[in-house]
Amino acid sequence: MNNIRLGILGGGQLGRMLLQAGLDFNLYTLVLDPDEFAPCRHLCEEFVHGDFKDYDTVYAFGKRCNLLTIEIEHVNVDALFQLEKEGLAIYPKPASLQTIQDKGLQKEFFQKHAIPTAPFRLLQEAAELDAHQDFLPAFHKLRRGGYDGNGVRRLDSPADFGKAFQAPGVLEKLVDFELEISVICARNVQGEVKAYPVVEQVMHDEHNLVDYLLAPSQIAYKLQRMAIEIATHVTTTLDIVGLLAVEMFVTRDGQILVNEVAPRPHNSGHHTMKANATSQFEQHLRAILGLPLGDTEPHCPAILLNLLGEAGYSGEAVYEGLEETLREPGVHIHLYGKKFTRPFRKMGHLTVLAPTVEEVKTKAESVKNRLRIIA
Amino acid sequence: MNNIRLGILGGGQLGRMLLQAGLDFNLYTLVLDPDEFAPCRHLCEEFVHGDFKDYDTVYAFGKRCNLLTIEIEHVNVDALFQLEKEGLAIYPKPASLQTIQDKGLQKEFFQKHAIPTAPFRLLQEAAELDAHQDFLPAFHKLRRGGYDGNGVRRLDSPADFGKAFQAPGVLEKLVDFELEISVICARNVQGEVKAYPVVEQVMHDEHNLVDYLLAPSQIAYKLQRMAIEIATHVTTTLDIVGLLAVEMFVTRDGQILVNEVAPRPHNSGHHTMKANATSQFEQHLRAILGLPLGDTEPHCPAILLNLLGEAGYSGEAVYEGLEETLREPGVHIHLYGKKFTRPFRKMGHLTVLAPTVEEVKTKAESVKNRLRIIA
Repeated sequence: MNNIRLGILGGGQLGRMLLQAGLDFNLYTLVLDPDEFAPCRHLCEEFVHGDFKDYDTVYAFGKRCNLLTIEIEHVNVDALFQLEKEGLAIYPKPASLQTIQDKGLQKEFFQKHAIPTAPFRLLQEAAELDAHQDFLPAFHKLRRGGYDGNGVRRLDSPADFGKAFQAPGVLEKLVDFELEISVICARNVQGEVKAYPVVEQVMHDEHNLVDYLLAPSQIAYKLQRMAIEIATHVTTTLDIVGLLAVEMFVTRDGQILVNEVAPRPHNSGHHTMKANATSQFEQHLRAILGLPLGDTEPHCPAILLNLLGEAGYSGEAVYEGLEETLREPGVHIHLYGKKFTRPFRKMGHLTVLAPTVEEVKTKAESVKNRLRIIA
Repeated sequence: MNNIRLGILGGGQLGRMLLQAGLDFNLYTLVLDPDEFAPCRHLCEEFVHGDFKDYDTVYAFGKRCNLLTIEIEHVNVDALFQLEKEGLAIYPKPASLQTIQDKGLQKEFFQKHAIPTAPFRLLQEAAELDAHQDFLPAFHKLRRGGYDGNGVRRLDSPADFGKAFQAPGVLEKLVDFELEISVICARNVQGEVKAYPVVEQVMHDEHNLVDYLLAPSQIAYKLQRMAIEIATHVTTTLDIVGLLAVEMFVTRDGQILVNEVAPRPHNSGHHTMKANATSQFEQHLRAILGLPLGDTEPHCPAILLNLLGEAGYSGEAVYEGLEETLREPGVHIHLYGKKFTRPFRKMGHLTVLAPTVEEVKTKAESVKNRLRIIA
């Protein structure tokens, strides 16, 4: 372990939690990020201030490492192919990344490998939409660069075409789904695969927004088995080394469709730091270090509540109600090292633990509005 | 939280694990340590290379913080008294530290507050031993500066007096104990106290050395209740803010005697990082930040195996057998960021988890000799 120089492309909160877990393994770490105030900047041996989308920057950074990974998928993959050719161990592999970076290639990959997914069409530009009126309602998604709902527009009728992107995109048929679920899989260098239990998004009763994530999901056992089987199949087929978060829809007629995948630690796995013996971050490191994967069984049910910057506030973050929040037994906070808040910025999360699903839900309801992040 | 500047006196493995947990709270951290290669050096915003036993160094360091804590108790307490007088929040408080730093004062404190402890006598120098032959067999302990068994000599008869320390010491009557246990308590700024379950040292069947730590202990429920009551009493009486590790003997006639205490995270609590929702490090931070204390219930039984440098090897550490070790489900490694090993140096620990005490013991036995730290 003493000889490993682990480079991470990206220095945001996912990198930060990866470094936090990485302390257990005595790794020498290097981080590349364009933000000089990135959450990782004080937590690695070498912080390199630079753009992970730039060929030369990524190449030069890679030459200083003997193992390279990512915490964001939008990185310069050409530089990674070159580094891999020169012998550098890069996980996830550049070929897997290339497919995932482009939502069009991702969809074609699913189709080619009989991975169930919503019907789609590829468009070069918005002008082509007129020829696809039969496909509405649908989502128009940017092929590259989207994240956290950015890069997605809903088109119900031709009247919405003005909202579409003027760039290569995927037109995806609207799925009448009952709920969204996610399975995080890990696959190590040797090819061993392990999946975490299914996590489900619980929606708010009134406004149609995600309220929190529940682990393990309460969907029928048969659907859980199916979801884990599909996620494992996608992980192996994509030749992933490291983690793959597989987001899926459960349709009203009991089908499971893959929505999209991310080859890295994922928001839907943050509860594993508290609710599982092996966190997703430890698991990612075990996978890319070629160590046996850890146990993925949870200790108890958990709910993950994202902490977003309050609407209407920008500036140095103030955490109002922290004490009342942490007074509830089984509630833990995890902040992301961001000095400044802005409306809806992901500032941290709460993990809520309880012995039963009923109790964890009741507790999450009582806790969820106590903490406000203002400025 | 954004305004806290937390200083830590000491930058060893305990400080490292404290910083690791501290990431969850977005703290600005400063560390003082005399070793420029200290395990904490890359994990804080400011690493100050200097001696925590020196008045001026500690004073100047304290002036840069608005909250000060320790990871080692042998620090300059006079500087802390001055800083406290000038308004700095220091936890544990200098007065508690002063009592604990000196094993003579510690024993007198136990006696004064009716805390059960082995009979003792205070000696200025070894020459006084002749007058205490009636007190043998006994341990001769240095009043100040001992750690990890350093600063302790066993004296069975006057023939052993040559081994005694030429410095102020405590002569402590040998206790015929059945086993050693430990309870870690936390007390926050507001005075709330919580104890972790009792941990017991399990000895090797043949050679009389500690084999591992088992949590929770399997001693009679009545003894557990007694141990927790005593530890809580010591914590409150010493006016601790933060953690107090209370090491105790269970004697063959069913008494519990306090051996010694440490006002900081402790080796006997490391398993809480994996086996409990609230680790001792998170708990220490909650306590000194004035936040409600976290739940101390364990998820499952755990065993802690210390990883020591193999006898006969010094130099850059090599971890032999890591893969076989981590292949066992429920086994997690935690290394301390030390580049160099030497015989018996504490290099890290393994935490072993299982659903029952029987299983965790079997697993620990099968795992304990797989990993060797050589050079």
